[in-house]
Amino acid sequence: MQITVQRDKLANAVSHVSKAVSSRTTMPILTGIKLKADEEGLTLTASDSDISIEVQIPTEEADEWGVTVHRPGSIVLTARIFSEIVRKLPGTEIQMEVDDRLVTFIRSGQAEFTINGMNAEEFPQLPQLEEEKVLSVPSDLLKAMIRQSAFAVSTSEMRPILTGIMWSLDRGQLKFVATDSHRLASRTAVVECIEDLHFHNIVVPGKSCNELIKILDENQALVDIVVAENQILVKSKHILFYSRLLEGTYPDTSRIIPAGSKTEIVVNTKEFLQSIERASLLSREGKSNVVRLVTLPNGNLEITSNAPEIGKVTEIMTPKAMNGEELKISFNAKYMIDALRAIDSPEITASFSGAMSPFVIRPTDNEWMLHLILPVRTY
Amino acid sequence: MQITVQRDKLANAVSHVSKAVSSRTTMPILTGIKLKADEEGLTLTASDSDISIEVQIPTEEADEWGVTVHRPGSIVLTARIFSEIVRKLPGTEIQMEVDDRLVTFIRSGQAEFTINGMNAEEFPQLPQLEEEKVLSVPSDLLKAMIRQSAFAVSTSEMRPILTGIMWSLDRGQLKFVATDSHRLASRTAVVECIEDLHFHNIVVPGKSCNELIKILDENQALVDIVVAENQILVKSKHILFYSRLLEGTYPDTSRIIPAGSKTEIVVNTKEFLQSIERASLLSREGKSNVVRLVTLPNGNLEITSNAPEIGKVTEIMTPKAMNGEELKISFNAKYMIDALRAIDSPEITASFSGAMSPFVIRPTDNEWMLHLILPVRTY
Repeated sequence: MQITVQRDKLANAVSHVSKAVSSRTTMPILTGIKLKADEEGLTLTASDSDISIEVQIPTEEADEWGVTVHRPGSIVLTARIFSEIVRKLPGTEIQMEVDDRLVTFIRSGQAEFTINGMNAEEFPQLPQLEEEKVLSVPSDLLKAMIRQSAFAVSTSEMRPILTGIMWSLDRGQLKFVATDSHRLASRTAVVECIEDLHFHNIVVPGKSCNELIKILDENQALVDIVVAENQILVKSKHILFYSRLLEGTYPDTSRIIPAGSKTEIVVNTKEFLQSIERASLLSREGKSNVVRLVTLPNGNLEITSNAPEIGKVTEIMTPKAMNGEELKISFNAKYMIDALRAIDSPEITASFSGAMSPFVIRPTDNEWMLHLILPVRTY
Repeated sequence: MQITVQRDKLANAVSHVSKAVSSRTTMPILTGIKLKADEEGLTLTASDSDISIEVQIPTEEADEWGVTVHRPGSIVLTARIFSEIVRKLPGTEIQMEVDDRLVTFIRSGQAEFTINGMNAEEFPQLPQLEEEKVLSVPSDLLKAMIRQSAFAVSTSEMRPILTGIMWSLDRGQLKFVATDSHRLASRTAVVECIEDLHFHNIVVPGKSCNELIKILDENQALVDIVVAENQILVKSKHILFYSRLLEGTYPDTSRIIPAGSKTEIVVNTKEFLQSIERASLLSREGKSNVVRLVTLPNGNLEITSNAPEIGKVTEIMTPKAMNGEELKISFNAKYMIDALRAIDSPEITASFSGAMSPFVIRPTDNEWMLHLILPVRTY
């Protein structure tokens, strides 16, 4: 392999694929980045057991030079060293050459690195997915859907299936659901796809989703989603992102969402969030992080919490609207804060069905999001 | 105690004194911030065993309201909780009231916190220093002097005296010296003070100096430095910073700085720094982090390093000037990088006295700074 490559493009590609580099050294080849040069350009690949990322640098694109391949070939270089070298090299062009003992020369300006590479044939092959089930989603929408649900996945390995986000597609509606069995986040959106395309029980690890967010652009360019039996592939321009799927059956969460409600409160999202955050300053000192919400006869809300030995906090808030029965309910402040931070709308409706039943938080201006929180039983 | 205080001023003061709050809980009172309200305003104090910081919020200053004291008094509040409360309170004004059981009410907007305080009389008194030996230094100069020497203090407790910066004053020249016995940094400046003021062997802990940097403004306002037997006090507007001094005698470092040199090299500071940084990418993989510098017959410099099993790097650099004997020398890249980063000047002179002798790095455009590095013996 012998190439000349534009430094910033290489640095950018290395930074993208590095998110999939394995930190475990049980398979040394996976601590590396695979480089493959052919007539189309340079392709970088990294992979751990869960995700794989592939980035292409075309020889030329929109009249902008990317890479010149003098001799095709491939090599695997230790990711940590290689990415630091690329970032610190002085020139705008980098020359790379691999000899037949896998020794790799990296030259730029007056600097020359000589690095021992690994055999690219030992690098695992990426899965070949049949591109039948393809749907297209704007990059920023996919980013938002992940951000607004991923926080609710379980961090416990007790029920591994709950550590993922359940993706489903039915009649052109893409839906993400995440729950750790104490709270649930659900986000829906209308997407472009062929009419009869549908899938269910596609559970993408939360960790994969959080890495995917980082490589997705904050714009409306369409990314393609390809779903296969045990893999998902997200394709944006020059970047392929593969994740394994979690095995097992995701629980049916539709039944736990209450249909009606006994008390409904409409509040300003930001004001409510800040009140809960202040109350949480004390309650999180205790283990439970419990905050109490009480409707007052004068139409106001009282938010309180207390931490033994430290003190207590009381906050009075005037809701935009309040209907139904009076209410005294306690809940984990963290779950409420997570849900409120995920909601971009200025107002929310909270629908309660009594102090012992799960309650629902929804934005008032759209139907695409729902957060369910289980209350905490207090004496 | 009963006061109304401007929120941002209180938040700012809390953030300053927090740098001196003790994280150790062996003396619970030191995990708190002391608040004292009197006719002059509100004074906040925090202290650990090494440093103490006091910040005053005057009742009014330059026609800007700071605090109104309705009833003088004092209280100690847990720093962590109090600082978070102050930061998260909704209004621009904060009301505070302490009752006779030390319960403290903190109100702002619709929020009310009730916090258990501690008795202010149990808070240790700050030392009373005789303000005889006072010198005045521009804030930004003091900051620079610390930044350009503190990195060289020892982190080992084997010789505790070397964990500090040695401050001395002689004939209007303030000098900071730090060494960990492998390298030395020295910084001098002319300062304003009464003619016969002088001191020596004032060793300020490196940790204290690094905290002091954070509260000093980046401007030329003068700060007063008061030196006492076992304490130093740095006074800027409304902020008092006390540090204990290290006990013992600082070694005489003047003798180890070589007078002449056998080889002299003048290089661009940034170019040289970047070359060493690249060489260090590989060498720091080994324990020693050794980089080798060789003068070539054609007048160039060769900088190399290698890491077994990973690879090697070679870098050619053209110096601005080179005089004297040819040279092959090895040194710890970290020491060189630290020294070069501390030098703001565009060019440096490196003066060598052979492969086994300490060498000196100086900026070419001033005489105020000197860095000494011991070479590493290689096979």
